[in-house]
Amino acid sequence: MFEILREIRKVSDIKLLDTKQLELLSKDIRKFLIKSITKTGGHLASNLGVVELTLALHYVFDSPKDKIIWDVGHQTYTHKILTSRKTKFNTLRQFEGLSGFLKRHESPHDIFETGHSSTSISAAFGIATARDLQNQHFHVLAVIGDGALTGGMAFEALNHAGRSNTNLIVILNDNEMSISKNVGGMSRYLTSLRTNQKYQRSKVNLVKFLSKIPKIGKMLMGTIKHTKNSLKNLFIKRTIFEQMGFKYFGPIDGHNIDELIKVLSVTKELNGPILIHVNTLKGKGYFLAEKEPTKYHGIASKNSKLTYTFSDAFGDAMVKLASKNKKIVGITAAMTEGVGLKEFSEQFPDRFFDVAIAEQHAVTFACGLAIDGIRPVVAIYSSFLQRAYDQILHDCALQNLPVIFAIDRSGLVGEDGQTHQGIFDIAYLSHIPNMVILSPKCPLEIESALNYALMKNGPVAIRYPRGSSPKTKLQSIDYLKNSAPLLHIEGKNILILATGKATIWALDVCNYLKIDYNIHAGLAEIAMISPLDVDSLVSLVNPYDVIVTIEDHVLIGGFSSLIINALISKNISKKYIQFGYKNGIIEHGKIEKVLEKNQLQPHQIAETIKYKIQEL
Amino acid sequence: MFEILREIRKVSDIKLLDTKQLELLSKDIRKFLIKSITKTGGHLASNLGVVELTLALHYVFDSPKDKIIWDVGHQTYTHKILTSRKTKFNTLRQFEGLSGFLKRHESPHDIFETGHSSTSISAAFGIATARDLQNQHFHVLAVIGDGALTGGMAFEALNHAGRSNTNLIVILNDNEMSISKNVGGMSRYLTSLRTNQKYQRSKVNLVKFLSKIPKIGKMLMGTIKHTKNSLKNLFIKRTIFEQMGFKYFGPIDGHNIDELIKVLSVTKELNGPILIHVNTLKGKGYFLAEKEPTKYHGIASKNSKLTYTFSDAFGDAMVKLASKNKKIVGITAAMTEGVGLKEFSEQFPDRFFDVAIAEQHAVTFACGLAIDGIRPVVAIYSSFLQRAYDQILHDCALQNLPVIFAIDRSGLVGEDGQTHQGIFDIAYLSHIPNMVILSPKCPLEIESALNYALMKNGPVAIRYPRGSSPKTKLQSIDYLKNSAPLLHIEGKNILILATGKATIWALDVCNYLKIDYNIHAGLAEIAMISPLDVDSLVSLVNPYDVIVTIEDHVLIGGFSSLIINALISKNISKKYIQFGYKNGIIEHGKIEKVLEKNQLQPHQIAETIKYKIQEL
Repeated sequence: MFEILREIRKVSDIKLLDTKQLELLSKDIRKFLIKSITKTGGHLASNLGVVELTLALHYVFDSPKDKIIWDVGHQTYTHKILTSRKTKFNTLRQFEGLSGFLKRHESPHDIFETGHSSTSISAAFGIATARDLQNQHFHVLAVIGDGALTGGMAFEALNHAGRSNTNLIVILNDNEMSISKNVGGMSRYLTSLRTNQKYQRSKVNLVKFLSKIPKIGKMLMGTIKHTKNSLKNLFIKRTIFEQMGFKYFGPIDGHNIDELIKVLSVTKELNGPILIHVNTLKGKGYFLAEKEPTKYHGIASKNSKLTYTFSDAFGDAMVKLASKNKKIVGITAAMTEGVGLKEFSEQFPDRFFDVAIAEQHAVTFACGLAIDGIRPVVAIYSSFLQRAYDQILHDCALQNLPVIFAIDRSGLVGEDGQTHQGIFDIAYLSHIPNMVILSPKCPLEIESALNYALMKNGPVAIRYPRGSSPKTKLQSIDYLKNSAPLLHIEGKNILILATGKATIWALDVCNYLKIDYNIHAGLAEIAMISPLDVDSLVSLVNPYDVIVTIEDHVLIGGFSSLIINALISKNISKKYIQFGYKNGIIEHGKIEKVLEKNQLQPHQIAETIKYKIQEL
Repeated sequence: MFEILREIRKVSDIKLLDTKQLELLSKDIRKFLIKSITKTGGHLASNLGVVELTLALHYVFDSPKDKIIWDVGHQTYTHKILTSRKTKFNTLRQFEGLSGFLKRHESPHDIFETGHSSTSISAAFGIATARDLQNQHFHVLAVIGDGALTGGMAFEALNHAGRSNTNLIVILNDNEMSISKNVGGMSRYLTSLRTNQKYQRSKVNLVKFLSKIPKIGKMLMGTIKHTKNSLKNLFIKRTIFEQMGFKYFGPIDGHNIDELIKVLSVTKELNGPILIHVNTLKGKGYFLAEKEPTKYHGIASKNSKLTYTFSDAFGDAMVKLASKNKKIVGITAAMTEGVGLKEFSEQFPDRFFDVAIAEQHAVTFACGLAIDGIRPVVAIYSSFLQRAYDQILHDCALQNLPVIFAIDRSGLVGEDGQTHQGIFDIAYLSHIPNMVILSPKCPLEIESALNYALMKNGPVAIRYPRGSSPKTKLQSIDYLKNSAPLLHIEGKNILILATGKATIWALDVCNYLKIDYNIHAGLAEIAMISPLDVDSLVSLVNPYDVIVTIEDHVLIGGFSSLIINALISKNISKKYIQFGYKNGIIEHGKIEKVLEKNQLQPHQIAETIKYKIQEL
C-alpha cells in the first residue's frame, strides 16, 4: 500500500513521475485520505474531489515560487500531503496538530490563510499585482469552487482583475456543489456550460490540438503565441468570464491528469487573466461520499458522540413554530444541514431559502421580507455572519426591521480553529442600534428564545455554541416569562456573572471554589445581553464586592465589557475579575484543550479567582 | 417658471399628463433641482440624470402600492418632489429638514432606506418573495446604478433572484459612472452592450414594435404573451443578465420618456425576473455637471468654506511618502476624490487602484499586495468600511498583514446623516486581533500617523473625521516619537480623556468648566486607542478621582469602554462620566446642531459635568 506515495518526500518529487505513475499516486492519496480522515475527522468529499487537480498544479507549477491560493482552504489535504506534511496527518485538526486549513507557519507552500469563502481571487490578484510592481517573475493561481464563486466578493475580484492585463490564473473547481447543493443563476449557468454541446466539442478540439504537441516546451509555446489568433478559435467565447475580461478554458475533466497538465502547461504561457473551468466530482473515489457528498463534506472523528445539539434544537423549534405561524421563513447561506434546517427545508420548501454562500444578500433579502410582514429567521454561523456586519447594521438595524438572527457556532468551535471561532459576535453586535441579543445556555432554551424574538418588532440575535452544552441542574430560562438577570446561587462577597454556555462553566467554577478553597461565590446568569436590564443588574450585584465575569468570547467588546460599562453608568464601583479570551487568535483542537491552554477550564478559573481575591 | 411642476400635488397627478407635458415637467424639475441644490447643497449630477426615469416609473407604476426600491437613495430627489415633498425642498439635508436619502418616516413612497450601495436587488427580491408568499399583488422594482452593480452583494442578489420565477424588475441605471469614473470588467462589458451594433438594432426593433401598439392595454398584453416566442427574438440574448436568469431589455435611452414608458409598460406585464438597461447621462441638463459629473456628484451648500481637511492632508502625505517609498500604493473603492487621492492617482497611476464600489475586495486585494511586500493604504469612509469588517478581521488581522486603513469620515458626518455616520469604527475594530488604531486630532498629524503605520509590521487603522478640526494650540502628536497618552493640561480632581477631534472639544470643555464653574479639569489625549498603553494611562489617571471621557462615537464598544476596561484590568477604581452617542441612530444636519441635540456641545458637556460631580 502507498508504494508511490511513500516515495514522495518533497513536492518536486512528483515532477519525475509519468502520467501512469501520477494516476497511481492519486489512487494512493485517495486511499490515504479515506483511511486517515475516517479516523481523525475532517473534510473528506471536497478533498477527494481535487486529488488530480492538486497533483497537476504542483506538477506544472513550482510552489512556493509560484503562488497557489486556495479558496476556503478546506480542500488542501492533498496539497499538505505533497508538501511534506504526510507524516503529521494523524494529528489533523487536533490540538497542536496540523490545521484543517492553510497556515503560513506550517509551510512556505501555504501562501494565504483562509477559512471563509470567496477571498482567493482578491488575494491572488493582489499578489500578482505586487509581483508586477516589483518586477518579480512567478505565476499566481487561485483555486476557487463553484460554491465560493457565489460569494459577492469573488465577483468584485473578477470585475477588478478582468479589466487588468495582469497574469493570473483562476481555476474554477466546479463540482456543482458548495457545501449543500449549489444554488443560483450562476450555478445554472455553469451547468449550461458543462452540458452545452458546442462547449464540449471545443473542449475536444482543444484536447486534440494539445495532444498533437509532443512536448509542452518553451519553444513550442512561442509557436503557439504566434498562432494565438487561430488558437483563440478553440477557446469558448462569450462566457460570463470572457465578458468580464478573462480568457476562458474549459470545461476540463478534473480527474484526467493528462488533460489537466496539458491545459495548465498551455495557459501558463499565456498573458492576462485566465479562467480554467475544471469539472470535478466531490467525494470522487469513495462510494459513500460520491453518493452523499453533503453528509461527507466534513466528517467528525469516530469518537464523536451523538448528542442533541443547539442546531438540532433550533431546527426542531423552527419546524414547530413554523407549523403554527405561516409568516416564519428560514434562510441559510449554503449551510442547510449545518444550521439544522434540513427538516424545515423539507417540510416548508416554499418558506425555505438557501441563498448560496452569500451572507450579505441573505441579510438584506431578509430585510425585504420583513418589510412586507414576513418573519425571516437567518441562520448563519457566528464567524461567517461577520461578512454581513454592514447589512445587519445598515439594512436591518437602522430601520429596526424584525429579522431574527440564529447565530450558530458562537464561541469556540474546536477543530476548525482560528478562522471559524465565533468569539467576536457580542463585540460586533452589541453596539448596533435596536439589536436585542439573547444567549441561551442549553438547547432547551432555544425555542423560548425564538418565541421571544417573534414577539419583538425589531432585530433579535440568538447566539448559541457549536454542539451541545453539558447537562445542568440550573434553572432554564423562559424568555417569554423573564429574561432579566437571574440569580442561580447566592454567595458571599463574590458573584460570578456569565451568559450562555459559560453559565454552566461558571457553575463548575462555583463548585471548585467551594470544595477546593472554601469560597462561596454566587452565580447569576445574564440571558439577555442587550439591552441589559441595568436596574436588575444593579440590585443583583449590590450585596457583592467582587464581580467575576466568565465568557466564551474575546474580552474587548465582550460580555464583561458590557456589564462593567452598564454598572459604571450607574456609578457602581466594584472589584472585577474577567475571564475570556485575551486575544482573538485561538488555535484549533478540542475545546477542552484550548480552554486549558487559555487558563479557562473551570478548575483553572477557580484557582485564578482564589489568587486574585487575595490581591484585591 | 415651474408652470407644470406647480400643478403636481400628488404623484398620481402625473398620470394625467401626455408625453409633451411630461417632457415639460422634466424640464421644470431640472430647473427646480439646479436652483434648489445650488442653494442647499446635495447630490446634483446623479439626480439630474434620472428625472425622466423617475417620471416614467411613477407614470407606469402605482407607488406606494407598487414598491420602487432605490439603490443608495441619493438620486431620489425627483421621487421626493413628485411624492409631495417639493415644498420642503429648501430644508434638504438640513437639521430636522428633508433627508438627502430615503426615509420611511418621510413618506409611504420611501420603501427601503439606504445610503450604502448595492443593497436594492436583495431588498426588492425579499419584498417580491414576501408578496408571493402572502398572495399579494403588486410590482416590485429595484433601481440600481452601474456603479452599485460592482458591489458584490448585488451579484449575490442577481444570482439568487435569477434562478427564481419571481416577478421583479431591476432597472440598471447606466451612466457609465459610479461616483468617480466607473471601473472594472463589468463596466467595460456594459459599454460593449451600449455600443454593440446588434444590440442597438434590436433596440430599434423593439421600439418600432412597441410604437405600433396604439395603447398599452391589458388586452394587447394578452396578445403579446401569446406571441411571446416571436417577441423573444426582439430581446437581446446571452447578456450576462440573461445567463443568470433575467430577461434583458435594453439599452433604452433614459432621457426619452416615451420610450421609457413603453418599455416599462410592456415589461410590467411579463413574468419572472427582468432587467431593463437604461442609459442616462449624469448631470443631464446642467452644462457644468454634464462636463464634470464627479465634481458635481455632491455639492456642498454655498456657505461651506474652503479649509484644509483631513482628506487633503492624507492626500498630501500619501504623495510625499510615496515619492520616497516605492512600496506604497493607494487603494480606493470608487472614492478617489472623496478620500483625497486625486493627486496621488495622477502622480502614481501604476500604484493607484480604484477597485469600484467593492470594499470587501479592496481589503483582501490589499492583503495580497501586503503578502508580497507592498505597503497598501486602503482609504475608505468609516461607514462604508463596515462592509469589509470580515475581510479586515479574517483576511488581514488573523494573518497580521501590514495593511494601512485610512478611515475617513470617522465620527459625525453632518448632512448625509444616519447611514453615513462614522460612529462605530472603534467598536468594530478594537476587538480585532493585532489591530493598531490611531486617532489623530488634526490634519497635521496625519503624516506622522502614516509614518508610524509604515513602521509597523501589521494592520494599522488611522481614523479621522470629515472636514477639518478647529485650529488648536494643543501640542501636536508625533506618532514616531511618542504615541503614549499625553497630558495637555494638569487639573484638580477631574481629568478629561479624549481622542481625535474630540480632544479639541475637550479643551473647550476645560475652558467652560474653568470660566463658568471654576472647575479645574485636566486634559489628556489618547492618540493611540489600540493597543492602549495601560501603564502610562494608569499613572496619568492616578492623581484624579473623576475621569471624564469624551468621544465622537457610540458609547457601547467605544473609547470610554476601552479606557474603563483597561483601568479595571489593573484594579483601578475611579468615578467615570462618559460623553458620546447613547444610540447609534443619529440624524442628519450640521454637526453643531446634531451635537447640541445630543447634549454634546462643549458648554453642555461642561454643565453636565458640573451637575454630575455633585452627585458622585
